[in-house]
Amino acid sequence: MAKRVVRYAVVGCGHIAQVAVLPAFGNARRNSRLAGIVSGDPLKREALPKKYGFEHAWSYEQYDDCLRSGEIDAVYIALPNHLHCEYTERAARAGIHVLCEKPMAMSEEECERMAAAAREGNAKLMIAYRLHFERANLEAIEVARSGRIGEPRLFTSTFGMQVVPGNIRVRRDTGGGVLWDIGIYCINAARSLFGAEPVEVRAETAGRAGEVEESVSVVLRFPGDRMASFTCSFGSADIAEYRLVGTRGDLAVDPAYEYAKPLFHRLTLDGETRERRFAKRDQFAPELLYFSDCIIQNRDPEPSAEEGLADIRVIRALYRSAEEGRPVELEPFGRRERPTLEQEIRRPAIDKPSVIHAQAPSGGS
Amino acid sequence: MAKRVVRYAVVGCGHIAQVAVLPAFGNARRNSRLAGIVSGDPLKREALPKKYGFEHAWSYEQYDDCLRSGEIDAVYIALPNHLHCEYTERAARAGIHVLCEKPMAMSEEECERMAAAAREGNAKLMIAYRLHFERANLEAIEVARSGRIGEPRLFTSTFGMQVVPGNIRVRRDTGGGVLWDIGIYCINAARSLFGAEPVEVRAETAGRAGEVEESVSVVLRFPGDRMASFTCSFGSADIAEYRLVGTRGDLAVDPAYEYAKPLFHRLTLDGETRERRFAKRDQFAPELLYFSDCIIQNRDPEPSAEEGLADIRVIRALYRSAEEGRPVELEPFGRRERPTLEQEIRRPAIDKPSVIHAQAPSGGS
Repeated sequence: MAKRVVRYAVVGCGHIAQVAVLPAFGNARRNSRLAGIVSGDPLKREALPKKYGFEHAWSYEQYDDCLRSGEIDAVYIALPNHLHCEYTERAARAGIHVLCEKPMAMSEEECERMAAAAREGNAKLMIAYRLHFERANLEAIEVARSGRIGEPRLFTSTFGMQVVPGNIRVRRDTGGGVLWDIGIYCINAARSLFGAEPVEVRAETAGRAGEVEESVSVVLRFPGDRMASFTCSFGSADIAEYRLVGTRGDLAVDPAYEYAKPLFHRLTLDGETRERRFAKRDQFAPELLYFSDCIIQNRDPEPSAEEGLADIRVIRALYRSAEEGRPVELEPFGRRERPTLEQEIRRPAIDKPSVIHAQAPSGGS
Repeated sequence: MAKRVVRYAVVGCGHIAQVAVLPAFGNARRNSRLAGIVSGDPLKREALPKKYGFEHAWSYEQYDDCLRSGEIDAVYIALPNHLHCEYTERAARAGIHVLCEKPMAMSEEECERMAAAAREGNAKLMIAYRLHFERANLEAIEVARSGRIGEPRLFTSTFGMQVVPGNIRVRRDTGGGVLWDIGIYCINAARSLFGAEPVEVRAETAGRAGEVEESVSVVLRFPGDRMASFTCSFGSADIAEYRLVGTRGDLAVDPAYEYAKPLFHRLTLDGETRERRFAKRDQFAPELLYFSDCIIQNRDPEPSAEEGLADIRVIRALYRSAEEGRPVELEPFGRRERPTLEQEIRRPAIDKPSVIHAQAPSGGS
């Protein structure tokens, strides 16, 4: 591809698209341009092009027109989870590159279909794991790898927030659920920090939030008797921390998963704790910059469809475990690629824009 | 009882007795006196009386002589877990009051026998939960109760240390095991913070440390869809933290369970975190002071045998869950008493003494 700038349509203009994805293009001008949106809301189609200075706004009925318009090279899929597969497949088959929000899809089979569509359409497909480009999380992986805390033995994490009734996160028909929405961060962090795939998993759910569980408590067994355990909830105050405990020390990252706050490390070695602050940055522009480079230079993006699938199969096994009240074994899954510090891309934090017809999970704007 | 000072024999002179219990008497002179020890080690029986200025030193064969000597009113049982029941029963039947280290015993049936012996011998029986007298932990319970963090929904905790092979903690015949030794702190904290008893529990173990599991990951379900989850390990660096997450805020206590370090609160409300330090204090003298007052004033001590049993039944259910690979339901258990700030007793930290023929769990002295 000879192009130097990749033209994107952002598909789905809910809260995350408006507070994070659309403004990120301002930090990704080197190789990425916001060319249009796809939205079901006439007010958004009217107002957002003016606000961000782009030309095109399609309805969902016009999605194929959008894909074939010649005006875009890629889509950023920011739709509810249950639509990731369909909208990715349609784009990829039309030869449009796809940067798709996580969770990649609702099943392993959907993941395979998305990957197949990308191969057939000769389109790049990347899953939007923003923390694979973020320094605090990448440095945590480096600490794990380096042996500084000895051999990592335990990963523990608590990730919670309040989600209001009616939000897509607590609706079954939109692919809601604690593990789909926030548990995936803990799973991805544990896999990245241990540099391995879980072999057996177990989950218990409690309570109700809308149509889904309020809380989930999880154990993932990794090879070498390493354990990851985490608890996620839609009924708690904001909390988003993890801890990696090794044979000689431990690293706490708190907050760890946030994009709207500075992140902190507390590394404890020989009983002494050192704190380190990582400035709040734009975590979305790095994904655009990197993915556009992959498209322009014809490289395979990472986090790939395989990385997306690696989490989906764990989530599915966890919900099966919760339903059946027993541990669930996982088939071996070969995965070599892990996030590294080389992937870090820094862009300054953006000012949070006002939003149109969109609510934060907790009900605010 | 007309006596103003309770005379104690410390039974078992391993690491905890030497670094914490024996020196604590210096902080408990108001109503407690170290009158003797029971030890199997001639060197300890020779050296410790000189070091601490007391008169009597009995061997285990002389335990009944000790109990009937007229020289002691109470024993502090600091023996390996598998001996708690026998040595408590014998003392209590002889009318000697018993302050017994936790875990109270190795089974519910042993707990019942100990409580029965205390009733029959008209002896007071208290279980040595040092954190029931410690301010950071009592204030955490107060935060939970007060509603400051909203309604508590999640308890999460990580408690780990390195334990060397051969230590009683990793031997089956001495009642070793991760839950018996350190898991009990997490269970007791969760019960105290939620002010409730778990209704269903689940555990998974991983790895080997000596003859026992290396790590255990646990979920306790509490009434009202509250969840406690924690991971404990004998194969990790020192870590001893918990977190209580409510609907409006959260409280992290880190370290929480230590007796040889200052403890810290980090309370987060409305996104703002305030740290508070609790000075290192003597956590053992308060138990002596309180228990001696109970004896002198003929009051029933709390933490009682019932509190001891409340944890034992959870530990046993957890090991059953781990063995059988399924959640285990618990019978209803009526328990009204919870630790409160009124129980706080402050005494200055002691200087750690040198020890004789005793090793810390991690192998040092």
